[in-house]
Amino acid sequence: MAQQTIDSTRQPAPPPDAAIKAAIEKFRSVLGTEGLLTDEKDVAQFRDPFAHPSWRAFEPSAVLQPASVEQIQAILRFANEHRVPLWTSSQGRNNGYGGAAPRVSGAFVLNLRRMNRVLEVDEESATALIEPGVSFFDLYNHLRAIGSKLWMSVPDLGWGSVVGNTLDHGVGYTPYGDHVASQCGMEVVLANGDVLRTGMGAMENTKAWQVYKRGCGPSADGIFMQSNFGVVTKMGVWLMPPPQVYMPGWLTLRRDSDLELLLEKLRPLMMNGTIPNQPMIINVLCGASAFTERKAWYTGDGPIPEEIVEKIAQQPGFGRWVMRFALYGDAKIVERQRQIVTDAFGTIPGAEVTFSKYDGNALPEFENPHERVQAGVPSLALDQMTRWYGGENGGHIGFSCAAPITGRDGSALRDLVRKGLNDAGLDYSAVIVVGKRSMIHVALVVFDTENEAQARTAYDACKALVAPAAKLGYGEYRSHLDFMDLVADQYGFNNHAQRRFNETLKDALDPNGILSPGKQGIWPKAYRAQAAR
Amino acid sequence: MAQQTIDSTRQPAPPPDAAIKAAIEKFRSVLGTEGLLTDEKDVAQFRDPFAHPSWRAFEPSAVLQPASVEQIQAILRFANEHRVPLWTSSQGRNNGYGGAAPRVSGAFVLNLRRMNRVLEVDEESATALIEPGVSFFDLYNHLRAIGSKLWMSVPDLGWGSVVGNTLDHGVGYTPYGDHVASQCGMEVVLANGDVLRTGMGAMENTKAWQVYKRGCGPSADGIFMQSNFGVVTKMGVWLMPPPQVYMPGWLTLRRDSDLELLLEKLRPLMMNGTIPNQPMIINVLCGASAFTERKAWYTGDGPIPEEIVEKIAQQPGFGRWVMRFALYGDAKIVERQRQIVTDAFGTIPGAEVTFSKYDGNALPEFENPHERVQAGVPSLALDQMTRWYGGENGGHIGFSCAAPITGRDGSALRDLVRKGLNDAGLDYSAVIVVGKRSMIHVALVVFDTENEAQARTAYDACKALVAPAAKLGYGEYRSHLDFMDLVADQYGFNNHAQRRFNETLKDALDPNGILSPGKQGIWPKAYRAQAAR
Repeated sequence: MAQQTIDSTRQPAPPPDAAIKAAIEKFRSVLGTEGLLTDEKDVAQFRDPFAHPSWRAFEPSAVLQPASVEQIQAILRFANEHRVPLWTSSQGRNNGYGGAAPRVSGAFVLNLRRMNRVLEVDEESATALIEPGVSFFDLYNHLRAIGSKLWMSVPDLGWGSVVGNTLDHGVGYTPYGDHVASQCGMEVVLANGDVLRTGMGAMENTKAWQVYKRGCGPSADGIFMQSNFGVVTKMGVWLMPPPQVYMPGWLTLRRDSDLELLLEKLRPLMMNGTIPNQPMIINVLCGASAFTERKAWYTGDGPIPEEIVEKIAQQPGFGRWVMRFALYGDAKIVERQRQIVTDAFGTIPGAEVTFSKYDGNALPEFENPHERVQAGVPSLALDQMTRWYGGENGGHIGFSCAAPITGRDGSALRDLVRKGLNDAGLDYSAVIVVGKRSMIHVALVVFDTENEAQARTAYDACKALVAPAAKLGYGEYRSHLDFMDLVADQYGFNNHAQRRFNETLKDALDPNGILSPGKQGIWPKAYRAQAAR
Repeated sequence: MAQQTIDSTRQPAPPPDAAIKAAIEKFRSVLGTEGLLTDEKDVAQFRDPFAHPSWRAFEPSAVLQPASVEQIQAILRFANEHRVPLWTSSQGRNNGYGGAAPRVSGAFVLNLRRMNRVLEVDEESATALIEPGVSFFDLYNHLRAIGSKLWMSVPDLGWGSVVGNTLDHGVGYTPYGDHVASQCGMEVVLANGDVLRTGMGAMENTKAWQVYKRGCGPSADGIFMQSNFGVVTKMGVWLMPPPQVYMPGWLTLRRDSDLELLLEKLRPLMMNGTIPNQPMIINVLCGASAFTERKAWYTGDGPIPEEIVEKIAQQPGFGRWVMRFALYGDAKIVERQRQIVTDAFGTIPGAEVTFSKYDGNALPEFENPHERVQAGVPSLALDQMTRWYGGENGGHIGFSCAAPITGRDGSALRDLVRKGLNDAGLDYSAVIVVGKRSMIHVALVVFDTENEAQARTAYDACKALVAPAAKLGYGEYRSHLDFMDLVADQYGFNNHAQRRFNETLKDALDPNGILSPGKQGIWPKAYRAQAAR
């Protein structure tokens, strides 16, 4: 049962030019000119946004932008007949992991930005039903436009798709920030064009599609996330009634080693809900990158030396680690939570805890983008972080491992990743996003996209961390196109039972292998045969 | 794409006697005598526990009780070779829905009671890894035996399997009462004998299997619940750190019509977490059945008349509707939540709210079983409810619909179910279990199992409610063997796309159709062909 991995050093052959040309003609007839991008400049927007222009990988043939389920079905019909590979994205803003770019060069990007309707907002049950093209900005603007007071959860950058982010296990930073947990009900177009509704949506005339997460029988929602088993065309999302009080907080730690103590103090507060959102623990360089450029601190080559890092950490408003978090709800309960949090962190030497306080029903224009994001107000301000090396052409690539919330795990990941990046000459910029029982250590590896050598180093350094992290017991929760196969390889229990299982589902649901071949290391049968030769 | 439903009026043919005999011999060689029950009296324990003995349906051939994954694999190997149908249960205590009995008579019950190890308790992250034979009592006793202070969530009757209850979308009544939401990681033996671990368990040496719910790639856990796609042999479960204060509360309503107002007041308190557990709203007859028998109130035939129902409701300690719920946590926060809850319900005319208060780290021996259950202490006391019609031989059957938490939906379900049961001559005994965004109206249809006519009436009355409920938009969240097909029929969106999808998965994962054929209306290919003839 041993299997051939298809990795990026051995790209599957793209479709022949004539096949691509014929497909474009067909897709033009289905989508019209408004739904088909073939111009090189337009198509380039759907490459890996931070890859160096000279790299020849992950290049789409053209971009399909259907406006309806029926158009998707027509695309799938042709793709099945002619074995045309498609690569689905919603907005396609998954930038630190390859953006909208396809794993297989020559594939057509099936981009759903034009399906951008908010189909329903239920004020009573605080739910929405949306299409995949709805960005966080779109949903936010829609809620305000209809006079709704409901809050939503947003990631740091608000231009992405609510659906797409959820499908890739993305997170936000209100109490609804575990986006998978806040999802309720889906519509999925399967590879054969059949339209499935999950949960209670499988019942015509249902009253509970957006409120009860399951139906009667197996729940398929999970297998349509981080997969290539279907095209999600509608999704239910839970919204949050506005809290009486919104109280964002900051915890500043002076010493690098205090990360461990912080995690030990934080874990019980996460488990018992004292801190209800997903706190982000930001290391000094990542914190600095939100407001400054690297050259303000250091202009030498190689990683910023420890003494400079320490100097930055001592600046007012900075720290070696800074945690953003927030409290939400009844004024008296929030006040008590503030006390509990302050008491708990007050035992860490040198720690400072500060809070702001806002009326949850009348939010201001926030000056601080972190306070905005934790209130579920979309923003692009934190895109600044990618400009660390200067100029407008900053890029980043994510290396992101899941772990228990313990000091041991926090320091193990910090040490592994810092050494890996520093040894490659890169700065260690990282955040730890903390959930109820687990945390994700995200190395935000920033680089100058116009500096090919640096970009290559960043990609390679991330890739080189995958196996050592797995050896310590840490798996990635999401991965860049460039090392999806390598990441999937780490999930090796019982001779890769998970891969075999995913392939069984893939072959059953998409026998012609047209949907996002290679996504998360799941390859259709035809590609596996090719690799085995 | 129209499809033949296999319903219980048209039982699939059981395997021939010779095949059953040969299988028993084989299974004896695999399991020894301690793992095989063939004696009629023993096997009878695995029939529908409340079916009348004269009914010839859902009858197992024998019961297999493997003690290991290897024994399960050996059973599956033989079952695949000889097309022997198995029917998986963990403890098999799903009594209101058919217990451990198989949908297809002649199937072998694959019962996992002997796999009853608590494999790990992680005090730090508050998780456990358990086998399917672990009952709620077992886990509770284990935690106390090892000196753990951690709480668990239990349903009203504690003899069931933690895994089995979760797989059937069961619920409990602490803040961890959404058992599916508290599940983290699985090991599954597939029909072909392959062993899959989900989420981070797919990585050897994983540190995050029981803390991070997903892996990298699709999450399969949901498709192994309420399905027949695999045999779950290990499961992670989240435990609750003990709260400083445990404060169970009671709300009593005098008027039937106040249910609507209650639900409107309750919904925001559920959404914002003021009430963190899953409250149960108990109607008067169900409440009475927990402590008394029917004959104490009425001895006539037919449903108890409205004036008697009203008389019961006016007794001290009773009410037309009574809601049990509880608060947990920091003393000051709980006190504030108590005030908010009291203020909110105080606006309902005649409503009474009372609370008890306990030290969460030193729970007493509770007198009231409701207080015990909401503290996660398993009990069998509420089994009394099934003895409403007198004697030890009470039975019950569940008819259980999911709906939004609104007064409209509450009264619509109450009126539909009450009329259906009363018209059939049965009492309306019901509870509404309330979650974060949805509620389940459970008709607890009790009857005397020795009274065949009454038992038949109870089964038929539940069955007769399925289609009318669906017409109003309410689907069942779980269903009795006797009407699994009928329930599945209601999930008819897009010409039963969900059924077709489930059949595609079934055929891919269990091509010989050996695992729990008919579970939740999912039939393997061979049975579908038989039905179509």
